Order: sequence, then C-alpha cells, then structure tokens
Amino acid sequence: MIGRLNHVAIAVPDLEAACAVYRDALGATVSAPLPQPDHGVTVVFVELPNTKIELLHPLGEASPIAAFLSKSPAGGIHHICYEVEDILAARDHMKAEGKRVLGDGEPRLGAHGKPVLFLHPKDFNGTLVELEQA
Amino acid sequence: MIGRLNHVAIAVPDLEAACAVYRDALGATVSAPLPQPDHGVTVVFVELPNTKIELLHPLGEASPIAAFLSKSPAGGIHHICYEVEDILAARDHMKAEGKRVLGDGEPRLGAHGKPVLFLHPKDFNGTLVELEQA
Repeated sequence: MIGRLNHVAIAVPDLEAACAVYRDALGATVSAPLPQPDHGVTVVFVELPNTKIELLHPLGEASPIAAFLSKSPAGGIHHICYEVEDILAARDHMKAEGKRVLGDGEPRLGAHGKPVLFLHPKDFNGTLVELEQA
Repeated sequence: MIGRLNHVAIAVPDLEAACAVYRDALGATVSAPLPQPDHGVTVVFVELPNTKIELLHPLGEASPIAAFLSKSPAGGIHHICYEVEDILAARDHMKAEGKRVLGDGEPRLGAHGKPVLFLHPKDFNGTLVELEQA
C-alpha cells in the first residue's frame, strides 16, 4: 500500500544552524525557510535526488513540535512520511488492522496542501508515521 | 555532497511484529530476516519505490543497537544513511567543518559491503547520520 518515502522530518531547535549543517557540512541544496503558521512550524526543505528532508522549527505558541523539542532539546527525527494513493482507503485499512489513527481520524490538509493523517507511534515501532495522499 | 537517501534504519524490539506492521498494515514488500553477525544485527529490508527502510534487531551480545533499545524499548528511528561518492573526501570535509566522525575515523565495510562512516548526532540535529560510499 505505501508508496514512496515522501520525506523524513527532523525537528531542530536552531533553524539557521541546522540549515548550515545541511548546506555547508553535508553539501545539500537547502530551501529558504517557509513559515507555515497553519501548521505551527517553519520548514526548510533539503532536496535529495530521491526524496527530501524537512527541517521543522516551532512557529507560534501551539506548535506541534514544541513538546518534542522540550524532551529532545538537541532535536531529532520527528516523523517519516509515506505516500498513499487513497488516504481514506489507507485510513480504513489501518483501523481494520487495529492501528490507531491520531486525532479524529479525518484527513486534514498537510504542509504540501495534500490530505494527510498521522499514525500512533506505539503501533509503528516507536515511529510517528505520516501518510500523505500522493 | 550527499546524494540519495540510502535508507532509514528503525531499531525494533520484536522483529516478527515489526515485519507484520510493515507487511500487513502498511502493505510494503518486506524481505526475509538477514542475520549480520559482523554488525550485531538482524536486518529486514522494507523496499519502497525510491528508497528503503531497514528494520534492525539486536544479534549477539555486543549489538550496537542494544543500548538504543534499552533507552527506547518500543523501538524508534536509529539512523539515516546518505550516499556519498567518495567516503574519504566526505570524511575529510566533515573534519574540516568541525564535525565529529565516530570511531577512529576510518571507514569500515557496512551492512551492504560498502565503506561507511557514522557522524556524531550532536553535530547533526540530534540525528545519527551514516555516510555510505555509493
């Protein structure tokens, strides 16, 4: 069912320093910071030939990554995102498999303007999984 | 400098259960378990169209992921691996940028039979980074 790995999201406490790591040390192509107030994050895209890394920094007072950074002040991998063809079919399949979908189970528009859902880390080897309709 | 995302490695406490999650719930193609005694892990490859996930389970008494799982018993993302063209040039560039290379700084043969190095998580946004010569 899952298709491409759409991205790996890394929460970072200092966006400018994280950009420098990916641009200067790792030599990757790094986008300008893109504030996404609706999602409570500022995002920097690191473009790789086959997928991308998203550096996430909290924006506003109710950022979904604030709690993560308070537990892991140095930052760390926050989630991985897999593409699916049909988000509602994927949601129903997860429920049938006994896997927990976060929130009210209704897809919402994600950071790329496409419907997404998040799955409970406890059901996925301690990994927060995002599904995005491709 | 970095090229493709070669893989995301997820440490799992129960390999059979983790295979079932990726095969049955996420519907991905999952390999048979491959014991790698030289690396202290048993690996399952989850093939995606653009990259792969590696499920890592401890093998033997000196497994490099045992400490990770004792801190995170449910499992979690252990490292991400980027491809580079020249591992020695990459190593020297990291040192020149003030980034710490783990171990003695000499590449060793990784799980795919290619030279690899690991970089210190504290220098890479809390993320353990593996570089593999493509």
